[in-house]
Amino acid sequence: MSKTIVALDCMGGDYAPVETVKAAVEALRENNELFIKLFGKEDDIKLELDKYDDSEKYSDRYEVIDAPEIIEMDESPVMAIRTKTESSIVKCLYAVKHGEADAMVSAGSTGANLVGGHVVIGRLKGVERPPLAPFLPTKEGPVLLIDCGANVDARPSHLVQFAKMGSIYVQNAMGIESPRVGLVNIGAEEEKGNALTKETFELLKEVDDINFVGNVEARDIPDGAVDVAVCDAFVGNVILKTYEGVGAVLLSTIKQTLMSSLKTKIGALLIKGKLKKTMKKFDIEQYGGAPMLGLKGLLVKTHGNSKSVEIKNSILQCAMFKEYDISNKIKNSIADTQEEK
Amino acid sequence: MSKTIVALDCMGGDYAPVETVKAAVEALRENNELFIKLFGKEDDIKLELDKYDDSEKYSDRYEVIDAPEIIEMDESPVMAIRTKTESSIVKCLYAVKHGEADAMVSAGSTGANLVGGHVVIGRLKGVERPPLAPFLPTKEGPVLLIDCGANVDARPSHLVQFAKMGSIYVQNAMGIESPRVGLVNIGAEEEKGNALTKETFELLKEVDDINFVGNVEARDIPDGAVDVAVCDAFVGNVILKTYEGVGAVLLSTIKQTLMSSLKTKIGALLIKGKLKKTMKKFDIEQYGGAPMLGLKGLLVKTHGNSKSVEIKNSILQCAMFKEYDISNKIKNSIADTQEEK
Repeated sequence: MSKTIVALDCMGGDYAPVETVKAAVEALRENNELFIKLFGKEDDIKLELDKYDDSEKYSDRYEVIDAPEIIEMDESPVMAIRTKTESSIVKCLYAVKHGEADAMVSAGSTGANLVGGHVVIGRLKGVERPPLAPFLPTKEGPVLLIDCGANVDARPSHLVQFAKMGSIYVQNAMGIESPRVGLVNIGAEEEKGNALTKETFELLKEVDDINFVGNVEARDIPDGAVDVAVCDAFVGNVILKTYEGVGAVLLSTIKQTLMSSLKTKIGALLIKGKLKKTMKKFDIEQYGGAPMLGLKGLLVKTHGNSKSVEIKNSILQCAMFKEYDISNKIKNSIADTQEEK
Repeated sequence: MSKTIVALDCMGGDYAPVETVKAAVEALRENNELFIKLFGKEDDIKLELDKYDDSEKYSDRYEVIDAPEIIEMDESPVMAIRTKTESSIVKCLYAVKHGEADAMVSAGSTGANLVGGHVVIGRLKGVERPPLAPFLPTKEGPVLLIDCGANVDARPSHLVQFAKMGSIYVQNAMGIESPRVGLVNIGAEEEKGNALTKETFELLKEVDDINFVGNVEARDIPDGAVDVAVCDAFVGNVILKTYEGVGAVLLSTIKQTLMSSLKTKIGALLIKGKLKKTMKKFDIEQYGGAPMLGLKGLLVKTHGNSKSVEIKNSILQCAMFKEYDISNKIKNSIADTQEEK
């Protein structure tokens, strides 16, 4: 295993720097080959590090780099990237760009991360558009939803690249030999869909190195019908957010009901343990955040409300990404597409 | 209240003709001003009618019309409409077209209904595209999701018409004076979205007779953020089916957990009554099926697995549609758009 250098945006997210620094310490404990560059307000980070008795032990595997500026959630991403050069996000981006880090992890502004990934880190040769690909929970384990990024109005050739990148990622990250790749559509039959999906279907049928299983209806995604669900970013965002919205409303309604009387409270006590265990299946923190693929280096975007578990797993994801040489695999796969043309 | 004549496709859906005929009898009991034309295999329908002691009592308010052919779910809709002229769906469509019925209700093939609505019943003057608009459950009551039909790749002018038709429908059907109309988008800010939503946003801002509240993210739909959610049919289908899929998987997982041990079974007994009552809120059968709007007459498409409750409420929806003169209201509203151009 080779050493992986991860740039961590310690100031991003609702619980920064408490949870981000905690995640760094936990990741250092778990993986000896990690080197973490902690970007953010130096004093704040050091105060957090001091909370852990063993942080000193790893001091040759981390470095604190002062980055006093903060990019707010409502700032224009393009302007923020250009002007806030002393922010933790921008400094992480440049660390990856200049080869001073292999990958970066941030729970900060999604817009700034996506724009920064694109314009600062830059795309791998041949990649037309770098997608953001979160995992969604299903009955049968996670599914990679690719693309949920900021670039909408995709072309069929973009979706074909998403399918290839997603397949390679799931193969390596999840250890699934031949991930089932589905095209998100409004019917299972080949002739269904809009102009984009119809044309993409024809192209995907001809791709040799993925296991394309045809169209997948949104209804069948939570059932675990595919391992990689390919769509343009608009549709991906709609699926992601409907998932979150419906899940949250149902669970909060059930919770409220359980707390509504003495009788239901006793009932709740009896089912609580088992239910918590079952619902763990739907917990995707264990896989870390969403990778932005097709860049010269990896960017992992975690939820704004991430706790240390998700951030730690995102850091470990970076090590896995380097160990399995996913960047080169993507580069080679995309180069094939270019030659085919 | 004026008499409403409803053509009922008695052979459509998984539980036909048992549930369809039951729904007809229940609707006749509830509304004296209804006249129902029951289309389907005459003998089968009559056998079903004989099950109800009081069906004879309403015999001057219904008529059985033989339609022996069946359109299967996997048939090509266009071919089926053209060739199966003795099917219950096609006969219902022509009954509306020829003014022998004000509206029709069918749980049969969605494709055949949508194509039939379009080519047999036909559009109101000025309507560019007739949308299919199901209600979805939310924490705060139902939201009309418009469009979930078969015609994808919509133009901004289509979405503006959907917004107007949806607003009029919810105003009358739900008694909401000024329904909040939202444009489904991937961010709340005005500049967010794809080419379609950006252009549509500009147009919707200028429409006087709707309460346009701006973009709505898919996450906020289950929270009840809007009364009418406007989108193109591809996105509508994705939302509808993600809703159904996530809901079904979560509820079945919870159910399984409750049945997994003696302890959880006892717990389940204690919470069952309350939980059932709460979950009623998410039950949309009470509103009936999805209206296809903008036609010369109403077509209500219910789920393939509808029981009598949903079908009965769809029949009553037809009476409401006629009573509130919704067709004319839509015609006038769309005519305004045409003049504005």
